[in-house]
Parts: sequence; structure tokens; C-alpha cells
Amino acid sequence: MSAIGIRGTFFDFVDDPWKHVGKEHEAARFHADGLLVVEDGKITDFGAYDAVAKRHQGLSVTHITDRIVVPGFIDGHIHFPQTRVLGAFGQQLLPWLQNWVFPEEMKYADRAYAKDGAKRFFDNLLACGTTTCQAFTSSSPVSTEELFDEAARRNMLTIAGLTGIDRHAPEKFLNTPEQFYAESKRLIERYHGKGRNLYAITPRFAFGSSPALMEACERLKREYPDCWVNTHVSENPAEVRGVLAEHGDCADYLGIYEKYKLVGPKFSGGHGVWLSDDEFRRLSRTGGAITFCPCSNLFLGSGLFRLGRATDPKARVKLTWGTDMGGGNRFSMIAVLDEAYKVGMCNNTMLDGSIDPARQDLAESERNKVSPYRGFWSVTLGGAEGLYIDDKVGNFTPGKAADFVALDWTAGPPGTEWHQSLVVGDGGPKDMEQAANLLFGIMMVGDERAVDETWVMGKRLYKKA
Amino acid sequence: MSAIGIRGTFFDFVDDPWKHVGKEHEAARFHADGLLVVEDGKITDFGAYDAVAKRHQGLSVTHITDRIVVPGFIDGHIHFPQTRVLGAFGQQLLPWLQNWVFPEEMKYADRAYAKDGAKRFFDNLLACGTTTCQAFTSSSPVSTEELFDEAARRNMLTIAGLTGIDRHAPEKFLNTPEQFYAESKRLIERYHGKGRNLYAITPRFAFGSSPALMEACERLKREYPDCWVNTHVSENPAEVRGVLAEHGDCADYLGIYEKYKLVGPKFSGGHGVWLSDDEFRRLSRTGGAITFCPCSNLFLGSGLFRLGRATDPKARVKLTWGTDMGGGNRFSMIAVLDEAYKVGMCNNTMLDGSIDPARQDLAESERNKVSPYRGFWSVTLGGAEGLYIDDKVGNFTPGKAADFVALDWTAGPPGTEWHQSLVVGDGGPKDMEQAANLLFGIMMVGDERAVDETWVMGKRLYKKA
Repeated sequence: MSAIGIRGTFFDFVDDPWKHVGKEHEAARFHADGLLVVEDGKITDFGAYDAVAKRHQGLSVTHITDRIVVPGFIDGHIHFPQTRVLGAFGQQLLPWLQNWVFPEEMKYADRAYAKDGAKRFFDNLLACGTTTCQAFTSSSPVSTEELFDEAARRNMLTIAGLTGIDRHAPEKFLNTPEQFYAESKRLIERYHGKGRNLYAITPRFAFGSSPALMEACERLKREYPDCWVNTHVSENPAEVRGVLAEHGDCADYLGIYEKYKLVGPKFSGGHGVWLSDDEFRRLSRTGGAITFCPCSNLFLGSGLFRLGRATDPKARVKLTWGTDMGGGNRFSMIAVLDEAYKVGMCNNTMLDGSIDPARQDLAESERNKVSPYRGFWSVTLGGAEGLYIDDKVGNFTPGKAADFVALDWTAGPPGTEWHQSLVVGDGGPKDMEQAANLLFGIMMVGDERAVDETWVMGKRLYKKA
Repeated sequence: MSAIGIRGTFFDFVDDPWKHVGKEHEAARFHADGLLVVEDGKITDFGAYDAVAKRHQGLSVTHITDRIVVPGFIDGHIHFPQTRVLGAFGQQLLPWLQNWVFPEEMKYADRAYAKDGAKRFFDNLLACGTTTCQAFTSSSPVSTEELFDEAARRNMLTIAGLTGIDRHAPEKFLNTPEQFYAESKRLIERYHGKGRNLYAITPRFAFGSSPALMEACERLKREYPDCWVNTHVSENPAEVRGVLAEHGDCADYLGIYEKYKLVGPKFSGGHGVWLSDDEFRRLSRTGGAITFCPCSNLFLGSGLFRLGRATDPKARVKLTWGTDMGGGNRFSMIAVLDEAYKVGMCNNTMLDGSIDPARQDLAESERNKVSPYRGFWSVTLGGAEGLYIDDKVGNFTPGKAADFVALDWTAGPPGTEWHQSLVVGDGGPKDMEQAANLLFGIMMVGDERAVDETWVMGKRLYKKA
């Protein structure tokens, strides 16, 4: 297959902006006129157009104009079988699962329903600019199979796994630990590392997992150490109390996953709203990640994730960010940025001393501010680092997959275009600061309507109508 | 002018759903096939199609199909001269005003800029289904004139007033108390009660108002008791401390407005995030209203408004809900419902005893849940009651203006249509419960794309492209 070129305005990251407080631009990379060279779906060269074009005479080039091209978004936590039930009324986590979620997820034991759901799921992701996700499926292997098969047809990097639960759900929805172990093993052999599919051993959450189910997970991770582990942790206060009553030998929620040797690189626990400082420190030491899901944390009333604490340089915790659709009410990582900014600003006020001088911590307060640098890093390279897939995706460094999104900063709700004209008039951003300001406008004034094109492995899979 | 009829599926309110806990449908009214009769812009008859049509033989009828028709939305708090600057990065209230807002608002002393801004402002509102707003202008009378003139051209009920500030803003942006008094008086005479324009005496906020400016407001209200009073109260903790330092003879923020005899019917104070229980009780007694602006409270990190406390039946406070655009980052009252639900659910968790048993209050916890009944009432009839304009707008009761919106429950971000198909398949909602479930889907999964048509005084002013 011969090389192709994509010419346009590019914005990506080479480092964590939280390491560059006050000079976050040092973590980013910007080419007002750039060129991305792609061969067999992978990036082989990248840089300023004039320099790169010289090295590739006769290259067939697609020119994307009036757009900012950023790496495809990475959704670290999403529930594929909740595609239809997102945004259901009125409950916190535990009754919400019983009343809305389990009944819908049970439908995914039916292959035709699961197949249709998988198509809609990836269609929605692509329309939102998401090119990679780590997904929960249901307790039926059918849902995992249909998800991976559809992902493979689109060639989208997808991390997923059979989602085990043997407590606190309707009888016919439950796995047994033995069946969960055997089915997970079969699915790992069939899907893990085939094409771009990656397998995550997925106990739904410790609250729904008996010690026997947790032991099955430990055994799977021992037998397949290369696999990911995906679950939930410390989402809701009633859940935290419940889980400690059931796993009485553990001192805290994270301790349950530690007991079964699941926490470390490639582990991610969704939410972590109620994690203690000590749990944050242990995650930092071991390399386990938390997935920050602000749409969901607000929608289910779970609480305000302590972003400034998780990003403390003295005990930095790896993070991925996620929609948690359908606990989150949007498919779009741009909507996640909107809500992340708001959670951060509420934390900022709580820690600046204006409410309670005894709780003042100006450095932590500041780390809660989701600038466009911090935000877009978190849903691209930062998310890839949290998921330990930054060797594969996350920015435009040669060797990685050519997964990217072309953003139209003028598209969005009424008023977006005039707002953005405060930053640039005709023509695109001239420098990184203008581009960052446009990206902030997309986060907070725009929405997923900004996603004009989504490319996966150098092929355009979505173009806005 | 002869009568016209609008046939369609109608949903509106006749009472406050918070008075009907557990049976909120008693506060609502639903006609799967209804008819609204309009003459000279006012509703003259309304009810089930079969019954109403018999009374109006030969009526020219527009049939709106596959839509839910609800009263036009009422935005109780919005800043017209911030149309372009909404969604500006990184600051809490006071530095945000200095760095972003005052520089933009200063442009509205220029008539051409203000005229263009007013057109865009109302275009945006109509595209979001908002037919009535209470707006802040700038400290320049030009902005107030252009706003009222444009509102009159569209025949939209608008409450607004010269927005006075004589402290804590750039020198050339400040009013003097004398100039504010004289200009307000002139504008009241020119605009108040002319067509649908209503005047609000508008001290921007006590933090920006000297005692002399507050005295000017008191004098205006004494001379024009029929006028509204619109301002801000207890938005941000640093602001609350600052304002009490400046008005040292007042015990709390509301007390400043009370001292100058501004609090009572037709008073509304934006935000009220940090109001004490005692201030809530005084508002309840006197009939003053608070405007709940969740998009703004989250965007500026102001905090979580205690909705369940404000709706305590023992001390019910009148509420209007608002975007507070540009402190709020959206023009749409549907976005306000999204964020209001989330603020309410966070409050719900904080009061259910799962975090701190000593703070458990299950009744207040429940009152924080923004059902579709509570939500849509709040942005229609409830907002009209809070603004004391429920004799004019807010529902489909004959005698009121024919201001309404036709909502397409399938339009919105990717995934909306499949989600809504869980509620209804082909054809519209058959009963009130189905309609309410569709409205919840519009709130939480959809967005302003649901607004298909917006009508003002019986004329269609907006149709989605």
C-alpha cells in the first residue's frame, strides 16, 4: 500500500500539561500548515508542510482546510449495551442499575439486538470523534463477541471484555464465577491481540463480585498478564459502604482489587470519586489508573472527582477520561470536557480559601482548572497513557496509528460562530495560542457538532452530513 | 384580525409540581390531539381538538405533527452584551468580570455594535425556544435602547433595564449614581409598558453598587413601583465576603437589597448559591424571587444551588431559572435543565445520609430531583410566576400570549433518536407519561436541536433549517 498525505492545521501533545504549570504550551505541538504521512494506516512522518513535503515527492495529499486536526478521542470508560438507555431518570447508582440498566443490558444476550447495538454504538462514537474506547459489555458473551467483531470491521482500537457480575442483579443476568472464568478465557484466546482488539478482564465492580468471582479474575490475570483489567471503584457513597460490608477483610474499596492482584499497569477503575488520599497514593505508586467521568458523576449525583488531588505531582495518578455512557448522558468526549471544566471549577472554589480558609490549598485549587491544553491532552495522549496504549495512539508521532479528527470550530449551538470570531476572523489559527482558544470554545460553547471528519488508520470513516 | 388555530400535541402546566410530590402529573395538562385558538396574538380557546374545533367552525388551522408543543421558555437571567463572550476561560466571578466581561460589554456603548448584538441575541434565543427573557444590558443606555427596540420589532416580552455599576469596574464603564438615576428614569418613561417591553430597575450587584447607587434604585422603585427589580445576590463566596465589607451595616447580602426596599414581588436576584436559611425564609415571606442558573454556577465554579431548600413547602421561595449567558456557557434553557438535573442529583446524594448521616434530610433530598415535570414547569409557568408575569405568559390558558415551541424529540446528538424510541415508536406520545418521558430525553440526551419551531404572539418566528 502506498503512502498518503494529510495536509492541514495540526494540534497534538508531546507531554503532560500538568507538568508545565504556567507554560502549558510546552506540552503541545502545533503546525498551522502541517503534513501527516500515512502508510498502511500508520504515521510514518509528521511536521511542518514545507519540511515534510520535501521528503515525500509525488505524495498523494488530501488537504483539510479550515479545520483543526487533533488525535482521535479516547474514551476510557463506556458501557456499550447502554447505548439506548443513556439519560434515564431519577436514581443514584444502585437503584439506577436495577431499574434501567440491567433490563436493557439483558437484551444483549440476543445476537441480532447486540449486532444492531454495536453498529449504532460505533456510529455514535465516530460522529463524536472518538476513535478508541475501553468498553464494558454485558454479562452475556454474545455482547462481547458482537462488539469486537464490529470494532474489527472498522479497524478501531477497542479494549473490552465480558463484564462479570454474580451479585446484586436479576438472577438471569448473573454469571457464575466458573462460567465467567471459562467464557473470559475463551474470549481472550479468540480476540486478544487479534487486529486492534485488546482484552480487558472485567469484573463489573466489587459490589457485584463475590470473592469467588474476584478469584477468577486474579487467575485470569495471572494466566494472561498481558491483558487489561477494567472495573469501577468508589463511585457512590452508598456503594462504598455496601462493598466494604461484603468484602469485610478489606480496609477500603481499592484494597479489594489489590487483594486479588489486579491493580497496576493496565488497571483502570472508573470514577474514584470517593477515594481516600491513601488510595490515591497507592494508585500512584503502582501505576493503576482512574477514569474520570464527569458527565456521569454529575448525572448520577455521585459527586465531584478530586482532579487537583489526582494530579498532585507528589503522587500523580494516571488518568483516563470517559463518558461512562449511559451513566453519563452523552456520547461525546467534548461534552466530557465541558463537564470536567465545571467539576474542576467547583473544586477550585472549594479549595481557594474563600469558603473555608482551613481547607485552602492554592496549588491543588489551580490543578483543577481544565485548560484546553489539559483537557485535550486528557482525551488524547493522556488517555492513551492511562490505558497504556500510548505506544499505539494518542498523538501524531511516527509509528502510531493515523487516528484523527478534523474539528470545525464554528459549528455548534446558536452563537458559536460569533463567539469563535473573537479568536480568529477569516482563515485558521496562526499560532498555538489561537488554536488553544478555539479548542476551548469548542469545549465550552460548541459540542460534538464540531466533529467534521473522523479518520481511523488513515481512512475517513465519518464525514458530517 | 381573524382567529387562527394550531393543532398538535400539547403539554403545559396548571400548578407547581413541587406541590404534588409523588403525583406530579396533577400539575400538568396534556392533549395528544389538541387545538389552540389564537386571536390578535392571544390565546382565546384551548383544549382537546374535538371539543374545541366544534366551537370554531371554519377556523384556519395549522397542524403541527410529530412534535410536542410546550409554552415558550422563559429565561429569568441573561446578559445581552455577553452574547459573544460566553464560555471564557479560567476565572471565578470577580476576575472573570474584569478580564473578559467588562471589555466586551464596553463595546455596547457603540450603537452599531449594540444593534448587531441585539439581533444576534434574539436570533439565538428563538433558535433555543426562548420567547421571554429578563436581561441585563450594559452600563450604557445605548445597549438598553437597542435591546428594547429589537424586542419590540419581534414583539417578544422582554424585561430589562440599564445595568448600573459605580464600583469595581474600569473607570469608563462606571455610572455615577446621578447619571444612573436620570437615565433609568428616561428609559422607564420611554419603554416601560410600551408594547410588551417591561422595565427592571437594575443595579448590577451590590458589590458594584455604592450606597448612593442603591439609594438611586430605592428612589426609582418608589417613583415607579410597577417596575421590576433585577440584580444578583450571593453568587460566589469571595463576592459575598467582599460585599459585606462594603455595606458594613448589613448582616447579609440580601439585607442590602432589603435596606433599600427593593425586595418583594417583582424582585429577582440571580444565583443565591450562598444564601443562608434565614435569607431563604425572608425571601419566602416577602415574595422576592431567586433565579437558579446552573450552567453558570458550574461554569464559574460558584457552587451548587440548594434547590431542595428553596422549594421547602414551609418556606417556599419563588424561582425563575436562567442561562446567565455568558456566565452560563449556553443560550439554551434545555441546557439549563440538563445542568439543573445534575446539580439536583449532587445535592440529592449529599442529603440522603450516605455521606454524613447527621445531614440526612430525605424530603429535601427528594426535592432536588428535577423530574421533567419540575423542569419544564420551571422554565415555563414557574418562571412566569417567579417573574410575576404569569398573567401574560407561561401556559396555554386563554388570555395569555400565544408564545410556544414545537419540540422534535428525535433531534439531538448522535443516539438521541434510538434512545427516544424506548418511549415511543412511530407516532407521538399517547399519554402524559409518555410525553413526560420524551421531555426528559430532550433535557438529558437531546439539546436545543429539539427546537423545531418557535412562535411568538401566534406568529412563527423560527423554523429549524
